[in-house]
Order: sequence, then structure tokens, then C-alpha cells
Amino acid sequence: MVSKEKDLMEWFSEILKNAELYDYGNYPIKGCGSWLPNGFLLRDKVTSILRELLNETGHKEVLLPLLITREMLEKEAKHIAGFLGQVYWVTKGGEDKLEMELALRPTSETAMAVIFKNFLLSYRDLPLKVYQIVSIFRYETKTTHPMIRVREVNTFKEAFTFSATKEESLEMVKEAYDIYCRFFDKLGIPYITVERPSWDRFPGAEISIAFDTILPDGKSLQIGSIHYLAQNFSKVFDGKFMRRDGSYDYYHMNSYGISERSIAALLIHFGDDIGAIIPPNLAPLQIVIVPIIYESLKNEILDYSKKVHEIIQLAGYKAILDDREDKTPGEKFYEWERLGVPLRIEIGPREIKEQKLFFAERTGNKKHIPLNELFKQIKISFSNIEIQLKNKARNDMFNKIISVDKLASIDEILRNKKVAKFGICEKEECGKTIDKMLTGASFLGYDFMLKSIGNCIVCNSKTERIGYVAKTY
Amino acid sequence: MVSKEKDLMEWFSEILKNAELYDYGNYPIKGCGSWLPNGFLLRDKVTSILRELLNETGHKEVLLPLLITREMLEKEAKHIAGFLGQVYWVTKGGEDKLEMELALRPTSETAMAVIFKNFLLSYRDLPLKVYQIVSIFRYETKTTHPMIRVREVNTFKEAFTFSATKEESLEMVKEAYDIYCRFFDKLGIPYITVERPSWDRFPGAEISIAFDTILPDGKSLQIGSIHYLAQNFSKVFDGKFMRRDGSYDYYHMNSYGISERSIAALLIHFGDDIGAIIPPNLAPLQIVIVPIIYESLKNEILDYSKKVHEIIQLAGYKAILDDREDKTPGEKFYEWERLGVPLRIEIGPREIKEQKLFFAERTGNKKHIPLNELFKQIKISFSNIEIQLKNKARNDMFNKIISVDKLASIDEILRNKKVAKFGICEKEECGKTIDKMLTGASFLGYDFMLKSIGNCIVCNSKTERIGYVAKTY
Repeated sequence: MVSKEKDLMEWFSEILKNAELYDYGNYPIKGCGSWLPNGFLLRDKVTSILRELLNETGHKEVLLPLLITREMLEKEAKHIAGFLGQVYWVTKGGEDKLEMELALRPTSETAMAVIFKNFLLSYRDLPLKVYQIVSIFRYETKTTHPMIRVREVNTFKEAFTFSATKEESLEMVKEAYDIYCRFFDKLGIPYITVERPSWDRFPGAEISIAFDTILPDGKSLQIGSIHYLAQNFSKVFDGKFMRRDGSYDYYHMNSYGISERSIAALLIHFGDDIGAIIPPNLAPLQIVIVPIIYESLKNEILDYSKKVHEIIQLAGYKAILDDREDKTPGEKFYEWERLGVPLRIEIGPREIKEQKLFFAERTGNKKHIPLNELFKQIKISFSNIEIQLKNKARNDMFNKIISVDKLASIDEILRNKKVAKFGICEKEECGKTIDKMLTGASFLGYDFMLKSIGNCIVCNSKTERIGYVAKTY
Repeated sequence: MVSKEKDLMEWFSEILKNAELYDYGNYPIKGCGSWLPNGFLLRDKVTSILRELLNETGHKEVLLPLLITREMLEKEAKHIAGFLGQVYWVTKGGEDKLEMELALRPTSETAMAVIFKNFLLSYRDLPLKVYQIVSIFRYETKTTHPMIRVREVNTFKEAFTFSATKEESLEMVKEAYDIYCRFFDKLGIPYITVERPSWDRFPGAEISIAFDTILPDGKSLQIGSIHYLAQNFSKVFDGKFMRRDGSYDYYHMNSYGISERSIAALLIHFGDDIGAIIPPNLAPLQIVIVPIIYESLKNEILDYSKKVHEIIQLAGYKAILDDREDKTPGEKFYEWERLGVPLRIEIGPREIKEQKLFFAERTGNKKHIPLNELFKQIKISFSNIEIQLKNKARNDMFNKIISVDKLASIDEILRNKKVAKFGICEKEECGKTIDKMLTGASFLGYDFMLKSIGNCIVCNSKTERIGYVAKTY
């Protein structure tokens, strides 16, 4: 297997394959991946966390059509301009040429506007927060990577809000921001949040905030984004509501999305050169029990192992007893490690004699624990593994962000596979100056949360804002 | 609102609209519906039941690509022949003409065969049972109806099995049959099961078994189907596995599907001229509490209602207290009845004085119950409503199936909006004779479970098999 250090995307493809999480490359269409049973369970866990966060904040799940007419897409001029090169078009039904070309949804602002205008007639119907988890399509001409740059984004959670005022819409931007922070924190994925510059916003948005994670190769990956769409879509789709005073106005909309890139990010941050590492809170399989058979004690060891397996399962953990006879313990260890199972429990003669268990945490720690502390020790190990993974990812990522105060230094930082951080003022020309001097990298925008007094790296004026430059996926 | 009796599909469209379950008609593409928040919760309940039945029988959920190449579809000759007229083709990406035309999946046999051949290399990897819940597409040129005949079937559960032998594959057909019986029984949907005649099988199948429900207008609706695909797909996709003895063979496949037609069927069977009726076990909202306010006792009534609402919710029921002041009780009753909420609890001065509650079941029954029997009575009412709905649907449906012994009688039965049932032998020519004499109706096939000694309605030979003729959706 190629090392993580040497070729991150190649390594990622291999861990997906070895852990049978996601098929990529066996399908005859570029950029189309498949969730295999193991991977689907992980995907299910991740989407459940997201659903829970959305449901408990009043978001309602819906499911809208996948096909979008060309006319709908063209209504909002910037929107279509931003997507036109990337849209897949259905032009034939059976042997008939269709009267109107139909797009595979690149995103659903237009469909949402068309449907919900029929239900949002009065101020009483507002605000509304809805979401769906669906496939979206992009005709990617660049190199594709599993889950990261695909033609069918098959796990896209897209949320939309409709509200009476700009103020309320911006409050909901904050709510979405808070939800996404909690989501990525639960997954243990480190991130920075950045307000994208005006020329890099979502097509049709007036504000775009992105969650970016810096991967171990120093490249930034956008894993979530939140957009204030103002009245841009409601105006062109005639989305009007009646105010309390009887007058009419167009509602304000937001949209915000998270895709399977979030799952890619956690697998990439946590995995190692052996294979995947899935944190216990997300793992479809949390514990594997491997009996270390000595022929003379075979029955005792197996019975003891079965008993341990049973009580662990009764306590609600997802555990498996690997009592296959045609594999050596070493082969089993390797297999379960590649799959990313966070905790292995080994049981051999010594463990039986001493009424102990041997714990091997996937993150490296190994120890004997007394049988009567089993549940306490599982909790400790799980907590250790989660904290270790999270902290390591966080430290690794923030160590890659290097503060600079000269434009000339940016290039070297990028060459060293790092991200540059600097003071920048809000004048568009300063951001554009940086963006123009870069090749193969981007000005990510302005940190959304952090402020720090300093000088603009371009014009040297006083500023509190912080900017980033990174290579990006 | 049009009556159910008069125009079933028009009535169905209206109850969907009035209950805000599913949007149909507001979208500019024919045959594309949207699940609105209320409907999505019902859909979620129904798919959860299905998932549970599949998971507990060892089926694993996966998610495969939506796009299928023309080459894949064309591999199995009968398969493509059966779908060719109905496939949507993607021919453009951005402004580029695609090198190969891509189909929106009409069904996923080919994708499953392409992916899983890489994982089913040995007898040890078999059997495998997988499923996905996805959108499939059919370019329908006929009249569309919400959920029933749509261009985007957006809730298609398709399951696939791979096994080493025909015997095992047929065992799995039985298992699927059992799962589907349990599913429809939980939903309370009545059905007959029919083995389709050879000329009406799923394209590429050697056996096709269908679950048909007869709707109140006497037309049959296929709500589930199970297919034995033999080695037809594995052969053309080179899906070989190694037997224990080292030799190779192609695996046998089944596929079986259920769509949102199951949700349409339950809404149609159970609903009435007021609106939807959702059985309590499926209802996203099970109970509505309506205080009947008398000004002099306003606070007492509201307090009492709140208390009742609170304890009902604590007990785990989904309940709402409708204390809106700008609606009369009558308006509220009508609104919740249209939405299909199965139980309404009314609380007014008399109920407070006597420490009682007034129960109005959506199916018509009304009664006073003592407050201290609240939970017992909710259970009784829920059980009553479920049994009532189920029995009524069952009786209504089986009353529409009329036994005949002369071919000449079939026509009149169809004209009377009924279904004809008769003895038929297994000779293909007899089935075809019936099929040919029909216009606007079909020979559904041979009852899969029922046998009864009699004579073939066509050739008069002795037979145990039973056939059906019906108009179909």
C-alpha cells in the first residue's frame, strides 16, 4: 500500500478499497462511486447525526424532483452562469427528443423556489426550514477523487430557509453555522471557517461562508458551505408573501450544504498506513474479540471469549467474535485493523488465568484490564481513541497554517505543503491581487470567526481581518 | 372536493394536496412529485418498516450510481428490449456532447452486477443480499398519476440477491415473498399475489411474482414484485465465483422491488371523502387535542388540555394541542380530519366537570372516556382504528373479485368495475387467448398461493390454478 505521506489520494483510494467502504474505479463511468455495506453503515451514522441536529432545530425533511428544466435554471442569471459548464442534460426519452432539455440537479435552489412558493403565501407560513439528502450532479472535467470530486455527489444534504426579513435570514445563517460546527465537532474533523471573497461565492449568493479542512497534504477541502441568497431567487420565481399589514414582499432565502466530503475528511484525517480508523462513536463495528487459541485450552478460551462477546453485545456495543479457524491471529489483527475497528480484545491462556482481557486500541495503545472493569475500560478506551484522533487531526492541521506578513513568502509556504495566513483588509482589490499572483492555489477568503489587529499584507492598511491562501481540492 | 366514488385519481390528488403530503402539479415537469414535510414523515415511517424487515433478514443497504451506460443496459438483450422505450438519456455535459450516452437508471440489475462481481469471487462470499432506496426513472408517455405512474419513482426500494444455486435463489424468492407479506400486512394493505405469465415478466426474469392490490375503482395496482433472474445477468456480466471444488460457475440473481405505490395504496384504501386517514401505527401525528373554549371556563379548559397533552407526549405519543384562538372548533376538526390524524380528543366544560375526555376516532366512532383510563383507551382506539381500516379495505377489495366460469362473463365484470377470477391451466396459449380478447384490461397471471380444483376457463381441462383479469394502473 502506498503511504499516506507519499500520495494522499492514492492512499485514500486504497483504504476505501481495503475496508470495503466505497467502490471507486470498478464502475464504467468516471466520478461515480458506490457505498458498499460497510461504508453505508458509516454513511448512515454520519447522516443520522446531521439529521438529528437539523430536526432538533426545526428543519423539516423533504424530497424534491431530481430533474430541473433549463428554464428554471436560467431564471437567476448568476446561478446559471456559475453552473452552465457543469450541468448534465437529459435530452432524450426513449427514442424521442425531449421538447425541453432537463438538467440533473446541480443543486436545488430553483426547485425549492418553485415548490415552496405555493405554500408560503403569508407571514404566518414563515419562516420555513427544509432539507433533503440527495444526489446532485456535476460534469467534472478535472481529475476526480472518490467522495471528494465526483460527478454524482450521492450524499448531499442541502438545506434551505425562507424568511420574511434579511435580519431573520442572517440569524439563520448563524444557526446553520452553529449546527455545522457541532456536526464537525461530533465527527472530530478540524476546520477553519472562511467568508469567501465576492468573486468566489456560490452562484446567486450574497454571502458565502465555507468550512474548510486542511488535509495532510496541505491542500484545503471545502466540507460545508452556507449561503445567504437574499431575494435573488424569490424575485425571479415570484416568491411573494403577504405581510401582517397586507402588503407583499419577496422572502429571503439561505441555502447550506454538506456532502460525503465530510466522510472523506474523517477517514483521511484519522486513517494511517495500515488502513482506516473509525472513531468508536461512528463505527458500525466497534469491538472485535479475537481468541488466541492454544490447543490444550481451546474450549476454555472459546467459552470465555463467547461470554465476553455476549455481555458486550448485551451492553449495546457493536461487537464481533472472530473465531474463524482458518486464519491466524496475526491475519485477523491485520484484517480488522484495515477495516478501522477501533478496539480489539484479545483472549488467550494468560487472560483466562488472570481473569483479564487484553485491549489493543486501533490508535496504538495496548493494555491488560481486569475482567471486572470491562465496561469502565471500554468507556475509557473509546474516549481515549476519540480524543486522540481528534487532537491529532487538529494539531496536524493547525500546524500546517503558517502566519506570514509578506506576499513573497506565500509561494514557499505552498511549496512546503502548508497554508498561508495573513492580515488582509476588506478591499476587493487586495484580495484579487493575491488571487492573481497564485497558480494552482486560491485566496480562500476572510476568517469568519477570528479577528486580530494587524496590517493588510497587500496595501499595509490597518485591518482586523485574517485571510488564507491554500492549494485546494 | 370530488368524491372517491366518482373519480378516484382526482380524489387522490386532492387528498394529497389538502393533507400537504405530496406536491404534484406545481412542478413544471410532468410526472415528478415532491414529498412535503408531512408526507416525508409518513414516507420515513413506511421505509423504516421496510428497512427493519430487510435488515433483520440479513439484507445490507448500499448505494450505487444513478447513471448507467448504454453498453451496460444493452448487455442483457431482453432487459434492454423491455426498457428501451422508457429510458431517459443524458447526452450532454455542459456544452459537450458525451462520448457515451448515459441512462437514468430504470432499475439497477446491471449496476449491481457490475459492482458486485468484484466482491463475489468465491462460494464463501455467497449468498449476498443487498438493497437500496433510490430514485428510478421511466419516460412515461401515458397519463401520469401522483406516486402511481410517475417519471421519477423517488422511493424505490430495490433488493438483489446473489447465490450459488438455483435452489438457494428460489428459497430467497420465498423469503422475499414472506418479507413483502409482512410489510403489506403491517401497512394494512390487502393484496393478491400472482405469478405473471411468461410474456409479462420483468425484462430479464424467468419468474416474476407480483403483489397486486385492487383499488376501489376496480383497477389493479402492482405494489410489489419479485423476480428470479437466473444466471441471465451474471452470464453477460461475467459474474463467476469459485465453487468449493475449485470449479467456476455463474451465480444466480433475484431482484425485488417496492415503491411509493405502497404509500399511495394505503392512502387510497383508507381515505374518505373528507380527506386522508392515516392509521395510528404510521401516523406522524397521532392525536390532536382540541379545547372547546367557553369564556367563563377558558383558563381551566386550557390548563386541563395542556396537562392532558403533556402526559400523552410523555407517554411517547405524537400529539399536538390546537389552542389557536382564530379558528372555531369546527374549523379545527375539519382541518385535522383532512390531514388524516387518527384520534381527536375534545375537552370542554363537561369533560372537566366529569373528569372525562371526548374521543373522536377519524374512522367515525365517538365516545366519552374517564380520564383515569386515558392510556388504556388510547390503545383501544388505536387498535380499533387499525383493525377497522384494515378490515374495511380487505372486505372492499375481496368483494370486488368475482368468480366466473365463462369467458363471456369477463367483460361484464370489468364493466362493473370488478376483477374476474377463474380456473386456468398452465398452457401458455390459454393465458394468451384471454389476454388477446381484452381491451384496456390484462390477464394478471396465476395466483401464487391459492390452488383450487376446477376447469380451465379456456380449454376446459382440469386445473388447480387460478387466474385473474383486471383493468390495471
